[in-house]
Amino acid sequence: MGDKRLRVSVVGATGYTGAELLRLLLSHPKVEVAQVVGHSKAGEPVAKVLPSFAGVLQGNIAAYDADVIAKASDAVFCALPHGASAKVVAELRARGTVVLDLSADFRLRDLAAHKAWYGEHGAPELLPSAVYGLVELHREALKTADLVAVPGCYPTASTLALAPLVKNRLIAVDDLVVDAKSGVSGAGRSPAASTHLPETAEGIRAYKIAGTHRHTPEIEQELSLLAGAPITLTFTPHLVPMTRGILATTYGRRLDASLTAEACTTAARTLFAGSPSVTVLDAGTNPDTLWVRGSNRAFLSYNVDSRTGRVIAQAVIDNLVKGAAGQAVQCMNVRFGFEEATGIAATAMWP
Amino acid sequence: MGDKRLRVSVVGATGYTGAELLRLLLSHPKVEVAQVVGHSKAGEPVAKVLPSFAGVLQGNIAAYDADVIAKASDAVFCALPHGASAKVVAELRARGTVVLDLSADFRLRDLAAHKAWYGEHGAPELLPSAVYGLVELHREALKTADLVAVPGCYPTASTLALAPLVKNRLIAVDDLVVDAKSGVSGAGRSPAASTHLPETAEGIRAYKIAGTHRHTPEIEQELSLLAGAPITLTFTPHLVPMTRGILATTYGRRLDASLTAEACTTAARTLFAGSPSVTVLDAGTNPDTLWVRGSNRAFLSYNVDSRTGRVIAQAVIDNLVKGAAGQAVQCMNVRFGFEEATGIAATAMWP
Amino acid sequence: MGDKRLRVSVVGATGYTGAELLRLLLSHPKVEVAQVVGHSKAGEPVAKVLPSFAGVLQGNIAAYDADVIAKASDAVFCALPHGASAKVVAELRARGTVVLDLSADFRLRDLAAHKAWYGEHGAPELLPSAVYGLVELHREALKTADLVAVPGCYPTASTLALAPLVKNRLIAVDDLVVDAKSGVSGAGRSPAASTHLPETAEGIRAYKIAGTHRHTPEIEQELSLLAGAPITLTFTPHLVPMTRGILATTYGRRLDASLTAEACTTAARTLFAGSPSVTVLDAGTNPDTLWVRGSNRAFLSYNVDSRTGRVIAQAVIDNLVKGAAGQAVQCMNVRFGFEEATGIAATAMWP
Amino acid sequence: MGDKRLRVSVVGATGYTGAELLRLLLSHPKVEVAQVVGHSKAGEPVAKVLPSFAGVLQGNIAAYDADVIAKASDAVFCALPHGASAKVVAELRARGTVVLDLSADFRLRDLAAHKAWYGEHGAPELLPSAVYGLVELHREALKTADLVAVPGCYPTASTLALAPLVKNRLIAVDDLVVDAKSGVSGAGRSPAASTHLPETAEGIRAYKIAGTHRHTPEIEQELSLLAGAPITLTFTPHLVPMTRGILATTYGRRLDASLTAEACTTAARTLFAGSPSVTVLDAGTNPDTLWVRGSNRAFLSYNVDSRTGRVIAQAVIDNLVKGAAGQAVQCMNVRFGFEEATGIAATAMWP
Repeated sequence: MGDKRLRVSVVGATGYTGAELLRLLLSHPKVEVAQVVGHSKAGEPVAKVLPSFAGVLQGNIAAYDADVIAKASDAVFCALPHGASAKVVAELRARGTVVLDLSADFRLRDLAAHKAWYGEHGAPELLPSAVYGLVELHREALKTADLVAVPGCYPTASTLALAPLVKNRLIAVDDLVVDAKSGVSGAGRSPAASTHLPETAEGIRAYKIAGTHRHTPEIEQELSLLAGAPITLTFTPHLVPMTRGILATTYGRRLDASLTAEACTTAARTLFAGSPSVTVLDAGTNPDTLWVRGSNRAFLSYNVDSRTGRVIAQAVIDNLVKGAAGQAVQCMNVRFGFEEATGIAATAMWP
Repeated sequence: MGDKRLRVSVVGATGYTGAELLRLLLSHPKVEVAQVVGHSKAGEPVAKVLPSFAGVLQGNIAAYDADVIAKASDAVFCALPHGASAKVVAELRARGTVVLDLSADFRLRDLAAHKAWYGEHGAPELLPSAVYGLVELHREALKTADLVAVPGCYPTASTLALAPLVKNRLIAVDDLVVDAKSGVSGAGRSPAASTHLPETAEGIRAYKIAGTHRHTPEIEQELSLLAGAPITLTFTPHLVPMTRGILATTYGRRLDASLTAEACTTAARTLFAGSPSVTVLDAGTNPDTLWVRGSNRAFLSYNVDSRTGRVIAQAVIDNLVKGAAGQAVQCMNVRFGFEEATGIAATAMWP
Repeated sequence: MGDKRLRVSVVGATGYTGAELLRLLLSHPKVEVAQVVGHSKAGEPVAKVLPSFAGVLQGNIAAYDADVIAKASDAVFCALPHGASAKVVAELRARGTVVLDLSADFRLRDLAAHKAWYGEHGAPELLPSAVYGLVELHREALKTADLVAVPGCYPTASTLALAPLVKNRLIAVDDLVVDAKSGVSGAGRSPAASTHLPETAEGIRAYKIAGTHRHTPEIEQELSLLAGAPITLTFTPHLVPMTRGILATTYGRRLDASLTAEACTTAARTLFAGSPSVTVLDAGTNPDTLWVRGSNRAFLSYNVDSRTGRVIAQAVIDNLVKGAAGQAVQCMNVRFGFEEATGIAATAMWP
Repeated sequence: MGDKRLRVSVVGATGYTGAELLRLLLSHPKVEVAQVVGHSKAGEPVAKVLPSFAGVLQGNIAAYDADVIAKASDAVFCALPHGASAKVVAELRARGTVVLDLSADFRLRDLAAHKAWYGEHGAPELLPSAVYGLVELHREALKTADLVAVPGCYPTASTLALAPLVKNRLIAVDDLVVDAKSGVSGAGRSPAASTHLPETAEGIRAYKIAGTHRHTPEIEQELSLLAGAPITLTFTPHLVPMTRGILATTYGRRLDASLTAEACTTAARTLFAGSPSVTVLDAGTNPDTLWVRGSNRAFLSYNVDSRTGRVIAQAVIDNLVKGAAGQAVQCMNVRFGFEEATGIAATAMWP
């Protein structure tokens, strides 16, 4: 290719999201990877820290240096923990670099909400400029965004499933339940009792329930925007004994007793027309997270329980791809004028 | 032991529930196993069909013969498929044997409901005499029951979780959602695409949703009895990539804005006082199916989401034990006057 | 791209290897997929049979028609069962199409051996023209091969691990043990008791041991060629509770008491220099199948047990990629003059 | 039961082996649990530390106090880490308590070997009095043992598989390979990268290979005793993505070309006649770890590869039961004159 490639770097490259970013970016035809940056692992060989890159990525994890990174990069992906990201983002933005931030630091538009759920904000002055990176809902704004707040994994699945119903007021917006199930990679790379294989591999459990999970306000923010009214909902995350994938099973009460699954499906297909990452399955299908594993795709489906009048809307994604790294690349594509699916069009690794 | 042991047989012993019955009965101090009966595998060595019994159970699977079984047995466990069971139960009952039936054939009290969900009934004349084998709710009636309809796995978990809330009218009974997650052994022993490891081990999916799963009317029957009013609810089963365990996450709307998780917990502890198989965890705990795997125990827990006013009630069981074989043994214990937990008191195989 | 793309078809597209071929070929910059052919599923929508392609592959599975396929295709991938493939290959070859056959039908050069292990051969006249598609050992011959016999998954891993040791006579060639471990997808897509999740997900077992697995002669053929002497070895395959991946742990006796793991590593790096799909890890590393999952890569490693004088050589691959579909694409690349890693350079989906 | 029960305590009760000891001892008809002792968790509720005992074990984890324990207990199970155990064992033995030690501290008879593999010994004076607790090989000595060194999990499986072949000199004792596969619970309860679900659940890998795993000398010690000659072998442990189970696939070279699998099977059945925990399967069977999960049983099987003259001997156990807690209870039974299988006769939790 004769074209000059976009120079991109990854800060916080040594976690699962970082690894997934590198996997996607190394195959992306329009970019070249400039810097692979880490903190605690700086100086160690990449192939030791990220074993799947042995023989492919030579060299060591670079230490963070805002000047060096900004000079070497047109865009930077920040895959740092919540709270730690804001300062780095601010330093890179101050040097003019476009930043795609995968932390929660710039996702909540309302500073008060951010404080309530996450504590003090490290760079509140940047909040107004951040665009929420759910491409399917904010495509236009992302085209000129210099700071992208890439959504959380649960909000991506939950919001995509419910968006057509809420936007078109097909369901009551004051009576929503999201029962979500996630693979364990969502918990990150740090070992803990809650991710120790013997206590995780053969059981399922809920966690952070009853309005205590930090993804709750993010889902509510996006659905409220669509509804044009404040939405509060019940969100229950579960840990499933598998590595990847999120299934959001959502429940709403239909407002019109004649509403069918087919009508919901049509509404979803209309809303997501032109969105290469979203496939709305035929009404009545039950999607499996396996069908999207490793891909940047979301499969949605709609059912109506006519006995109870409830709509069951489901979405499946890979939490590390459409729920994180792939979505960030999708945002980059939109921001820099590449075809939206460039480098992230691959179908799932199935089975 | 000098006492004469109760002679028990298992019909349909070659499936997972049959195997689990044998595991429990062989260790039960008050019974002896008389006949191990199967249909398609009759004449084959038990140890070939059920490999975990190699070196323990000699001899072959016996063919079904009602006269032989009735003569050899004081009680018979029927672990046959829905529809196939009624006829066998009728033959055994006609010979005076106490029958614990693990199929769905005698679970629905209402013949019309049975026909609607399962088709024609093979022995409708026996329906009035059948007692639903959820010991925690029907202990007294079970003491004299000659025909026990052992509950389904999903209804066991769902009903136990919601019973205290419904019985005490702590939640609105017309606004219930049960989002249930099951291990794959619930699908039985016949291989199918939906249980083939490569397409099942690393994904999660819902199935038979929107009011189409046959366990729905069973849950509704028991909760309606408790409420004293007809209940219809939304039930969504999911298949989880693990072998055993059911987690029922249930959602109800509290009727009194002051209702707390502690009050729900207290109500549950009151209802299940004296029930050795049920443990109500402290409010706010999230039970894991792993904590009950291999045991006849149910762990319940209660949370209240004060942001939305919803009560989240959870129950975990092992679908093959408290959801099938262990529950049947529990019923037998009650029926024959043994201590209720005899032979089924063991804690879970953890991890 | 202005270049005319190579037109490729997949016959037997509805199994796991077929699905994986389609995943790779759809992202391959030098080819276009012409026909997606199946037998029992012909006429059904692709997206119903292969759910991960929903929204990507429209249309139905085509029925097999040699004339149509040959006309539409420059090269055909045959992913048919052993025995069923030979006839189809013969028909396509007769029409001049280059065929990459993923069955075992053309892997054994010796017709007598083929008969002994597989029975009568369906197209023995083609055997002399077939080239064994282990690129790392037969790259030159593959450049002009019109019929490629793509290796089995176990032989790929086992042969790569042992090749440097056998070729350089670092170990005794009459004292070899291969203890191999495979994910369940190697058993194909047909449900069976041996792949039913409840009986497969939480246990490990050997199968077809003591010289009864059909991959044995294939490994022996390739190692014998390298050794210049007939080799017979002990091969024990195991089924591991996971979907993808093969680990071959191989044992040989060193011929020189001064042989080190480093020397073995150097020999392997020399042999596989210029092979983009093979990475030889530093001596003493233990590779994990997870590190290559979803990729066309093989990781090798060498250890020497100085207490016993044994060399332990290990290889990990993804059985469906480097062990099947990816290797076939690699062969196609070599045959048609593309860069060897085109379309198959991606690193593993980790974790 | 009118009999006075044996008073037993568990020191180091908060790990997996401790939990498994409690599960077995609580159901054991001849014992009562006196003290549940832990170190870092002392003072915490048992049910918080060991969730499967919620509702069953009231009270807190007791702190270690040798006087209190010795006074309260006839026998003590020590489930402490290697190195930490010797001192505690010495204190309890000094107070006259029978000790069943599950650490490696008293397994190697040769003090020099212990130092080479484990470092300084904390109570070398007790070494001569320790009896290795593989009941099947040391039953007589165990009847009077006051200090039992309960074997490691790998040595139990490996030694049982090879014992009949080595003892009867059916194979060359200087040419042995043990390729062992273990579930992750063998790594204990402390979270680590190597047990973190996302990096462990969908891959297989070897570890501590080439003569570096500390179970190697233990296997060699027991086989050397049987052979009457020093044995050195190659031992390769692997980590399998499952919680429980060990499969030892062992390789030996037959000394007589007429040796059959049936003859090996007969030798094994002769050696293990009267051993309730061992079942020797028919020749040619391939045991599955699932068939013994949760039980104190070992399944053995023998194959002969007549092409290469190798005997493949396999054993499967549950690493936490026959490989640890169950075996300790079996030793206690023998020591205190109970029927050997008392409390540990249950068949596996299958599936």
